[in-house]
Amino acid sequence: MAGLQQVLVAGAWRDPVEPAGRFQAHDPATGQAIGPAFPISGRGEVEEAVAAAVAVAEALAAAEPERIAAFLDGYADGIEAEADALAALAHAETGLPVAPRLRQVELPRTTGQLRQAAHAVRQWSWAHPVIDTAAGLRAMYGPLGKPVVVFGPNNFPFAFNAVAGSDFASAIAARNPVIAKVHPLHPATSQRLGRIAHAALRAAGLPAAAVQLLYRIEHEAAGPLVGQRAIGAVGFTGGRAGGLALKAQADAAGVPFYGEMSSINPVFLLDGALEDRGQALAQEFFASCTLGSGQFCTNPGLLVVPRTPAGEAFLAAAAQHFDAAPAQVLFSADGKRHLAAAVQALLAAGARQLAGGDAPEQPGYWVRPKLLAVDAAAFLADPDRLQTEAFGPVSLVVRSAGAAQVQALARALEGNLTATLYRAADGRDDAAAAALIPLLRPRVGRLIVDRMPTGVAVSPAMNHGGPYPATSHPGFTSVGMPGAIRRFAGLHSYDHVPDALLPPLLRDANPTGARRLVDGRWSTAGVGAAA
Amino acid sequence: MAGLQQVLVAGAWRDPVEPAGRFQAHDPATGQAIGPAFPISGRGEVEEAVAAAVAVAEALAAAEPERIAAFLDGYADGIEAEADALAALAHAETGLPVAPRLRQVELPRTTGQLRQAAHAVRQWSWAHPVIDTAAGLRAMYGPLGKPVVVFGPNNFPFAFNAVAGSDFASAIAARNPVIAKVHPLHPATSQRLGRIAHAALRAAGLPAAAVQLLYRIEHEAAGPLVGQRAIGAVGFTGGRAGGLALKAQADAAGVPFYGEMSSINPVFLLDGALEDRGQALAQEFFASCTLGSGQFCTNPGLLVVPRTPAGEAFLAAAAQHFDAAPAQVLFSADGKRHLAAAVQALLAAGARQLAGGDAPEQPGYWVRPKLLAVDAAAFLADPDRLQTEAFGPVSLVVRSAGAAQVQALARALEGNLTATLYRAADGRDDAAAAALIPLLRPRVGRLIVDRMPTGVAVSPAMNHGGPYPATSHPGFTSVGMPGAIRRFAGLHSYDHVPDALLPPLLRDANPTGARRLVDGRWSTAGVGAAA
Repeated sequence: MAGLQQVLVAGAWRDPVEPAGRFQAHDPATGQAIGPAFPISGRGEVEEAVAAAVAVAEALAAAEPERIAAFLDGYADGIEAEADALAALAHAETGLPVAPRLRQVELPRTTGQLRQAAHAVRQWSWAHPVIDTAAGLRAMYGPLGKPVVVFGPNNFPFAFNAVAGSDFASAIAARNPVIAKVHPLHPATSQRLGRIAHAALRAAGLPAAAVQLLYRIEHEAAGPLVGQRAIGAVGFTGGRAGGLALKAQADAAGVPFYGEMSSINPVFLLDGALEDRGQALAQEFFASCTLGSGQFCTNPGLLVVPRTPAGEAFLAAAAQHFDAAPAQVLFSADGKRHLAAAVQALLAAGARQLAGGDAPEQPGYWVRPKLLAVDAAAFLADPDRLQTEAFGPVSLVVRSAGAAQVQALARALEGNLTATLYRAADGRDDAAAAALIPLLRPRVGRLIVDRMPTGVAVSPAMNHGGPYPATSHPGFTSVGMPGAIRRFAGLHSYDHVPDALLPPLLRDANPTGARRLVDGRWSTAGVGAAA
Repeated sequence: MAGLQQVLVAGAWRDPVEPAGRFQAHDPATGQAIGPAFPISGRGEVEEAVAAAVAVAEALAAAEPERIAAFLDGYADGIEAEADALAALAHAETGLPVAPRLRQVELPRTTGQLRQAAHAVRQWSWAHPVIDTAAGLRAMYGPLGKPVVVFGPNNFPFAFNAVAGSDFASAIAARNPVIAKVHPLHPATSQRLGRIAHAALRAAGLPAAAVQLLYRIEHEAAGPLVGQRAIGAVGFTGGRAGGLALKAQADAAGVPFYGEMSSINPVFLLDGALEDRGQALAQEFFASCTLGSGQFCTNPGLLVVPRTPAGEAFLAAAAQHFDAAPAQVLFSADGKRHLAAAVQALLAAGARQLAGGDAPEQPGYWVRPKLLAVDAAAFLADPDRLQTEAFGPVSLVVRSAGAAQVQALARALEGNLTATLYRAADGRDDAAAAALIPLLRPRVGRLIVDRMPTGVAVSPAMNHGGPYPATSHPGFTSVGMPGAIRRFAGLHSYDHVPDALLPPLLRDANPTGARRLVDGRWSTAGVGAAA
């Protein structure tokens, strides 16, 4: 097919080989196709990319960490140099506002994340070196020595992009080649990022095939991409159905699959908080629910509100916000269809519409925010269906009566990324909070008090993860260095290996002052040296 | 069925309910059934055990760590108090020698492991507390809040027993209830351990259903035991076929599965080492290959020997040891059958028998050690079949010619627990070793120099794990505290949670002096206190 955009395969941008089809981006506000045509890669091209990644895996694992760090830093610099153009492209393809979202928030977060990964590489904080001199054993995390495949989501064209986001930075920091399967809703943004990455890779003197980029693959190509032993691991951010289909293929081949798939992020409003600041909470909730048209993994999709006068007043205020809200634009026609289907599923399961409405028929992917409600008893009778994720500016309020019912709701929750409690500042809700926390704790990755879940700081104490089905493993975060890096690492133990044959980080001498756990104590000194 | 031994379900020893069948242990030396009849648990009993474990999961997650540590220590004390009886039972059921193996090596290792887990609980070393005051985030590992199911193997009746070994200690240390599915080849040993565990649990004031014990389950009961979301994680040590069948069920339900399944533990003998000490190496290799009748996960099953005069001399010496070796006893008739089938598969794939023979027909599960050999070229032509694991005193020698072929062999290896290099003491093999290590490193969990792989120290720098198919995840060890504990933990982040609602380990004050990563620095002080 003529005129298709180039893919980044085997170290170079090149015309697609035997593409399985073509597609374009769309302007979400109008529904019109925009930009050039991009290829859908076929099985052959995918297999070639995997082979190219396998071929450079040894060289990348052996690369000087400083080169890896220089690449990550250089890539961040390159993104900043083209920040305005990138923000304009991403806005055109996603409908997300340039300012502040794309240019002032998401892009700096993305470059900050790349630089934090570079810092973790230089500090070796991800490698967790442990030395046991009595046993003659030394251990650290090291590269998988195989390609990592990253699937990016639709909702963060920069910070979770398969060729620029946290999974990408993490896999590269651990010195693994990456095959980035970017999201087809923002191909031009991804391509531009890929070009910057490729240039930075060459400038750092790393193998050119260490980063490859495909926009979209035919269905039959998923097997070779995730379901064979040549693959070291898969990072996926996206919807549950697609994630589980890929996970099944990876699982069958013994490939670790890190999927962040779905979450409704329950928020519990306790009595005192509602009494003291119900109006402000209504505003805060509405703003969080509609941020980015509600297309956040951490969108507050479930709100537990007591049947009290303060609860009623809160709901009345929230309903006013939803009723007054203008239409918002989603990323895609599919997204609009899925949101409508999820709302229908919730209504069919017994929820009713409390506020908000429908956008008038018009071109583009416009919707209006919606607030649904259901009784706690009805929720508890059908918790699976009433935990259907509605990806967009839609939340379900569960009306509760009494602490026992609230606790039953907590126990009925699936695995989620987050749970939130709002409590009175004077501590009078704290007994209720203390009773709820142990119930919520094993069901979520991040437990939040007095703020909405939509903010995700890039911090070593973050967990952007959570129990299944929110993600595929309860012990890992996809955001926050150095933890996110460890997903793409193997545990490497060395048993009586002589000093000269050890990796530098585990030798007796410690000239860079790396922090190591030596015979049970953290130390920056050499082994045998005075501490 | 009358006269069946009791199971430990729902907090008490009780007669089995609707067992699906019965079985007995056997004396491996005679093949005679010994001891009482034990039940095969049916689906109903398994479901009851899961429900009982789920019911105590909240209480166990909330338990004082000191109670958990006291249980682990008390259990170790109880095992020591019955050490002679336990060793006698285990010897009768497994044929492993009482001394030194069971009484002087494996039993102390098991109690040491329980005490190391207790120490990790008291020190919080497994919880990895991280505090980011600027971001308002704090994180640590915590209990899964769900049952952990542990499957024990046939080859370590104490140290890997589902009710006493590393998986058990790890899951309990992380404050999860355990359902122990012990190995049916040593039911009486396991029952006695279970009785000691149960008494220690009650003495520590922990929920009595926190430890349950089943001996064997019917095939249809595997689904409820590992393949439902109520289960927090599965720890499995055993053969590959059984492990992969359970893994598939766990994977489909999103349950983390930690399986240690198979390994042939390649050993590379470099030229100088063979020249300098070939005779000693032949003895060392033979001893390791036949230790415990070769029934070690880390048995040296593959030996790469160069076609040099020193290599020939080594093989001649090794062959003498194998030819002179008396018969050894395996654990079971199945084990003997599987070993014979594996040898047949290797012979069919082109290996030839170099030394050793067959045991005369007699009662019991006797075999004689065997040394097989194959050319490197033949191995490289059919690496999958020639990496068939022969679980027993059997090794395959691969005859290599030149460094390039040795490196090709390394690249053809599947994921293994270990790889070993023997090199000359004067360093003249070190260039060859340095070229091999990067190829072996991503393919194994533990890289060993100048000693056989059969020793597995319980150390924080151990990795008893490795890439698939040796285990199901390249980043975790099943031996060594605190790493082994983290398999059974969730990552718990707290976002702006007020001090009083935080778990004690993450509060500002740090009265126990736990080691925490506070704003990038390890500290035993309180937050805000002088370091």
